[in-house]
Amino acid sequence: MRAEILGVGTEILLGQICNNNAQWISERLAEIGVDVLHHQAVGDNEERIAGAFRLALSRAEIVLSTGGLGPTQDDITREGLARALEVRLVRRPEIESFLREKYRRLGRSMPEANLQQCDVPEGTRYLLPDRGTAPGLICERDGKSVYAVAGVPAEMREMMTGTILPELAELAGPTTLVSRLLRVTGIAEARVSEILDDLFRASANPSIAYLASSGEVKVRLTAKATTRGEAEALIRPLAEEVAERLGAHVFTTGDEELEQVVGRDLKAHGWTVACAESLTGGSLGVRLSLAPGASVYFKGSAVCYTPESKRKVLGVARETIERAGVVSEECAREMARGAREIFGADIGLALTGVAGPEPHDGKPAGTVCVALSAKGAEESSSFRAPGDRDQVRRWSEQSALDTLRRFLSRRS
Amino acid sequence: MRAEILGVGTEILLGQICNNNAQWISERLAEIGVDVLHHQAVGDNEERIAGAFRLALSRAEIVLSTGGLGPTQDDITREGLARALEVRLVRRPEIESFLREKYRRLGRSMPEANLQQCDVPEGTRYLLPDRGTAPGLICERDGKSVYAVAGVPAEMREMMTGTILPELAELAGPTTLVSRLLRVTGIAEARVSEILDDLFRASANPSIAYLASSGEVKVRLTAKATTRGEAEALIRPLAEEVAERLGAHVFTTGDEELEQVVGRDLKAHGWTVACAESLTGGSLGVRLSLAPGASVYFKGSAVCYTPESKRKVLGVARETIERAGVVSEECAREMARGAREIFGADIGLALTGVAGPEPHDGKPAGTVCVALSAKGAEESSSFRAPGDRDQVRRWSEQSALDTLRRFLSRRS
Repeated sequence: MRAEILGVGTEILLGQICNNNAQWISERLAEIGVDVLHHQAVGDNEERIAGAFRLALSRAEIVLSTGGLGPTQDDITREGLARALEVRLVRRPEIESFLREKYRRLGRSMPEANLQQCDVPEGTRYLLPDRGTAPGLICERDGKSVYAVAGVPAEMREMMTGTILPELAELAGPTTLVSRLLRVTGIAEARVSEILDDLFRASANPSIAYLASSGEVKVRLTAKATTRGEAEALIRPLAEEVAERLGAHVFTTGDEELEQVVGRDLKAHGWTVACAESLTGGSLGVRLSLAPGASVYFKGSAVCYTPESKRKVLGVARETIERAGVVSEECAREMARGAREIFGADIGLALTGVAGPEPHDGKPAGTVCVALSAKGAEESSSFRAPGDRDQVRRWSEQSALDTLRRFLSRRS
Repeated sequence: MRAEILGVGTEILLGQICNNNAQWISERLAEIGVDVLHHQAVGDNEERIAGAFRLALSRAEIVLSTGGLGPTQDDITREGLARALEVRLVRRPEIESFLREKYRRLGRSMPEANLQQCDVPEGTRYLLPDRGTAPGLICERDGKSVYAVAGVPAEMREMMTGTILPELAELAGPTTLVSRLLRVTGIAEARVSEILDDLFRASANPSIAYLASSGEVKVRLTAKATTRGEAEALIRPLAEEVAERLGAHVFTTGDEELEQVVGRDLKAHGWTVACAESLTGGSLGVRLSLAPGASVYFKGSAVCYTPESKRKVLGVARETIERAGVVSEECAREMARGAREIFGADIGLALTGVAGPEPHDGKPAGTVCVALSAKGAEESSSFRAPGDRDQVRRWSEQSALDTLRRFLSRRS
């Protein structure tokens, strides 16, 4: 079964955004064994949209489009699809009722502009959206299927995950691609690839691929088989070998973020954590707070962006700042102790450093100090994070979270 | 002059990467007034690559491809292009000498795999690479031009910037596309489109387009003319009319984030701000800290994720929490006052609310309260943010930053 993905939106052709929707959908289709042979992107032009649908239908059994289903005048996927199918648009009163009710529940009235979202190509079925106001469109024609969904990523994902992907998985039948992700921190991609080199060359199915981002390497093992069970059986021994070789650098073999692993471990111990941040501006706290129910283990974060606020709010000694500077393990330790105290948490986790691009206090950009304070235990470390401001912050978050992860795992 | 961009690489079709090269090139072409009407992506398959080139040549004057020029077995753009042009590949000894010398200078010998990079479709000229080992290919056919470059982003950018874009700018002549972005917050996309409806319909050049994300609508005005000055003169009256109609919802007419606008205004007043956060977990502080030099105006943020930490750290009264709850304007005001005091800032900005998905204290998901505290002034507001946890947090950040922006602009 061949699929084609069409991105509708002038913003793509102007280079204002990347066609991330096509990437996400492609990954999901690969997981259910559907081959994607072509991507297209066209702007908000009825003729070119229609042409794109016709082209896709000429060479694929499944056509998925994103974008152009909104309530503004440049949203014309409905018109383009209708033209390609050579049908007219029909106004559906039940969609209008649905949308009016959605607005009413938010205490507002529906703008008349949303009425165009109630138009559907004749003979096409529609999916009412939970998120947003754009119904999805599903059209079957000569044994082929066209699915058109909104371009807003969260709306697209909801409709794909909720209805369309399950439908396609049924259609696709029992060829399955299974991927397992081992996520690794504290080690460079080139080193990971060296350690796994012989496995990489030896194995076509499962295959190994790497994706590096700041402070993390994802090692992806992908197996193809007729059933999920067979694919997983192919992956298992390889995953064990990879995990063995990479040791404690592996923070999860599931599709979890480092903060989720940490959250689980904190809950298991019944411990709470509070943070003290500086260069990360609050992003360490954001990560810890991301999981629903985080308030069980995350008390809060004192983001102290200036030396003065580190003193006032966290109680870092003036003498420490004068002698060692704010970018020091001594300062980080006092910040960690301070966070523990003011929030009344079991563990204090602190970060201080130089985001860049300029050096600070004679310390070069990328210098980062992490400290952890707990009852009867304290530790700290320093490192140089590579890259620009954003990468340094990302590395810092990873490093602090990994410090906490290793601390908790030593006490299991 | 119409251009088409072709991304070659199975990794794109598997959704492992987004076609960022197409985005970058599209933006550059827009800057020199070349219209990009189509993007395509195909995998490492000679037949489909050839088909993609043929299709592009049938509907565009300029065809640019990225990817498939490397030294491995899955790099077959050369073969695909030769097939589309109906010519054979010719081995160029001067490219081989060039590559062997490149390796020699690195103290290595050239792997035999690189020999395929010395093959060029007959009648095609080539560009020797500074970065990497993949020559670029340039082919003219019936008044059209095909440019094929490496997929590695840095190599692609180098060849585009160094040679191809200047060549295309010459060909394009003095047509320029200029875009102006007005960014709007606190108003729904459908409402913006209603307000601007007559302008949208009346104006083909400049054109109006919308891009909505959580808590913001970008209104993009794009004009095409022979010179930059003319294009800007076309945009100016339209931009003024749009800004007039959208009033204080417009937070910038430049390409700035809301936090940059706020940072500028704070600096202009010589004022500092500190935040008190809860549901946002630290992300309000992250946004304020994002600009280099933010420590001039941003003191820090107290992220108090639990009722207890709001009391201990921010000094919110136990009685307020018991009577009004943590999700209340009273609590938000006390948080704002508390942040101002513990950080010694001129302004305290607070957010409290229910991120969801569950309600809290009888308040539904999406209930958010913002408060601002300054010397001799205090304000607060509540609203319902739509969407999931992430969207509620994003709306909350936008709302808090916009509250601060409007406060500062009233005092200019």
